[in-house]
Amino acid sequence: MRKVYNFGAGPAMLPEAVLLKAQKEMLDWKGTGVSLMEIGHRTPEFQALADQSEADLRELMAIPSNYKIFFLPGGATAQFSMVPMNLLGINKKADYIDTGVWSKKAIAEAKRFGDINIAAAACEENGILSIPEQDEWKLNPSAAYLHYTANETISGLEFQWVPDTGNVPLAADMTSLMLAQPIDVSQFGIIYASAQKNLGQAGVTIVIIRDDLIREPVANTPATYMYKTYQKYDSFYNTPPTYSWYISSLVLSWLKEQGGVEAIYKVNQRKAARLYAVIDESKGFYESRIAVKNRSLCSVSFYLKNDALTEQFISEAHEAGLAYLKGHRFAGGIRACIYNAMPEEGVNALADFMLDFAKRNG
Amino acid sequence: MRKVYNFGAGPAMLPEAVLLKAQKEMLDWKGTGVSLMEIGHRTPEFQALADQSEADLRELMAIPSNYKIFFLPGGATAQFSMVPMNLLGINKKADYIDTGVWSKKAIAEAKRFGDINIAAAACEENGILSIPEQDEWKLNPSAAYLHYTANETISGLEFQWVPDTGNVPLAADMTSLMLAQPIDVSQFGIIYASAQKNLGQAGVTIVIIRDDLIREPVANTPATYMYKTYQKYDSFYNTPPTYSWYISSLVLSWLKEQGGVEAIYKVNQRKAARLYAVIDESKGFYESRIAVKNRSLCSVSFYLKNDALTEQFISEAHEAGLAYLKGHRFAGGIRACIYNAMPEEGVNALADFMLDFAKRNG
Repeated sequence: MRKVYNFGAGPAMLPEAVLLKAQKEMLDWKGTGVSLMEIGHRTPEFQALADQSEADLRELMAIPSNYKIFFLPGGATAQFSMVPMNLLGINKKADYIDTGVWSKKAIAEAKRFGDINIAAAACEENGILSIPEQDEWKLNPSAAYLHYTANETISGLEFQWVPDTGNVPLAADMTSLMLAQPIDVSQFGIIYASAQKNLGQAGVTIVIIRDDLIREPVANTPATYMYKTYQKYDSFYNTPPTYSWYISSLVLSWLKEQGGVEAIYKVNQRKAARLYAVIDESKGFYESRIAVKNRSLCSVSFYLKNDALTEQFISEAHEAGLAYLKGHRFAGGIRACIYNAMPEEGVNALADFMLDFAKRNG
Repeated sequence: MRKVYNFGAGPAMLPEAVLLKAQKEMLDWKGTGVSLMEIGHRTPEFQALADQSEADLRELMAIPSNYKIFFLPGGATAQFSMVPMNLLGINKKADYIDTGVWSKKAIAEAKRFGDINIAAAACEENGILSIPEQDEWKLNPSAAYLHYTANETISGLEFQWVPDTGNVPLAADMTSLMLAQPIDVSQFGIIYASAQKNLGQAGVTIVIIRDDLIREPVANTPATYMYKTYQKYDSFYNTPPTYSWYISSLVLSWLKEQGGVEAIYKVNQRKAARLYAVIDESKGFYESRIAVKNRSLCSVSFYLKNDALTEQFISEAHEAGLAYLKGHRFAGGIRACIYNAMPEEGVNALADFMLDFAKRNG
């Protein structure tokens, strides 16, 4: 058993079994006598790993055959550029939903390349943040796509539903939610997620794209930022981030052993429910500033009513092996990220700590 | 002692000491109780690692203070785009030297963004490849920069000298040579190298750029492809490839323990000399197709006169623990990559094998 539960937002906690396997194989991967880090990406050995990880992801998410899967460098932030550069097409118009820091970053980047309409934005009422229902959105029916951020990890604001945009393709930043809950991929045009939440370590980003959306990109798009490059070369246009890909492959195997996405989703729901219950039953000692209908499954943010206690909470928690609970520098407060790799015992330990801390300081 | 010497071109062999340290720290990095893979990039712990690795690189290469160092995702191939996108400036003209596959890739990419002059190209005479001397080059004195590939890893063709372009900044792809031999950084405008040869694992690329060359990029450049983004955010614009960065930091520490670049260069020279001597003294059993003045220090390519023996050579070598000697799919023959991490014993084992193989099959 590990001594520390890591609630950091990402690069985030990994399953212990994955780390143990990577440790064991560090100097001798599958009897090759060399580390996976030292294996050429064009060897049959690495190709087998790439094929297996794609097959595992396709199985876990039931990805239809008309969707391509790419393992790319650069993080989700690179996708903030690649989505508009590749999907804006000729009319160069797209709709975006602004729900916080991450969608604002995606919007700022998209504006370099096209005419961006903010179809809706999160709103705050009496200090509570929520996402407006779709009937309040101002959608452009001829938009090339609609982009939204399924979960804002900084505030802890989650959609909990999938927009219905008819023939307008949906583009979703799923970084913190991919593989944490079941989704119907066929509802989306493109989904992307950097690996350092639920899929492995920083350095690789998974892109799932419906093949008819791989279009001619805008002028001056570098080859490495064209989806059509990766369509042609299957993520092997140049040396991919092989070790990050390997860690993702171990995470995918581990998730299959846990029973897949449906099974882990049940655990994730219990984990989130436990923490929100402690907050809601704390008689105001802890505060959530997110509407119940938009509370995040994986990034549980809250505040201490008496903010003077926040630092003490964080340092006492750290002493107790509950690490990296400090809220994002833009948000303050506390943030507990409870992705797939966080075991239920870790969440229970945090919940017990919260109860005890409130009792001692309430 | 490891059982296998890995002569692959990259992702390439790593020092055993680096792998052992990474293995040991896999589940508990510096007493944090978590893996480096799980540590946020904005924590003081990771910042200290980033600062130390920059300081180590600056010391090892004696990098002047007016040069910025970036640790970026995307490989050297991303730099094929970033260099022209950021350095072409207003007149959009640059000179390139074409010495083989890698410079051709850089040239094809640069042509998307500007007016590219091929100032010189490698030439073949009687089956021997060489780089023309500078007095034969057709340089444009008003070029924004001159780009060259210091070592073509596929053919094994190396400059062995630094072009003198006066006020025109030099841009060098140093992927296979950085830290393998001393260079005077002040002769260059920008140097880049992906890590998977001498600097660690695939997934991170080191860029060293004179700060006055960080210019306004061409239209439609994504934020993640602007050097000015990283100038502003010190490689932390978004989540960097933290674990790849960590492995690079271990390689830099290891290189300091070996005595630095001057010391490893002496070893590298002995390693290359040993292999070229075996080739030259084989009475034509082995052939080099590179002019002596352009033979690579780190990627030693050669052919068996009787090509029918090539596959047998590769498989017998593999059996003997001399792995991944097959030449690049574009070149055929044999390629022995002998970067910093390849110990002299590995090269001697290969040389002995070559002598024995020639004796048995000559």
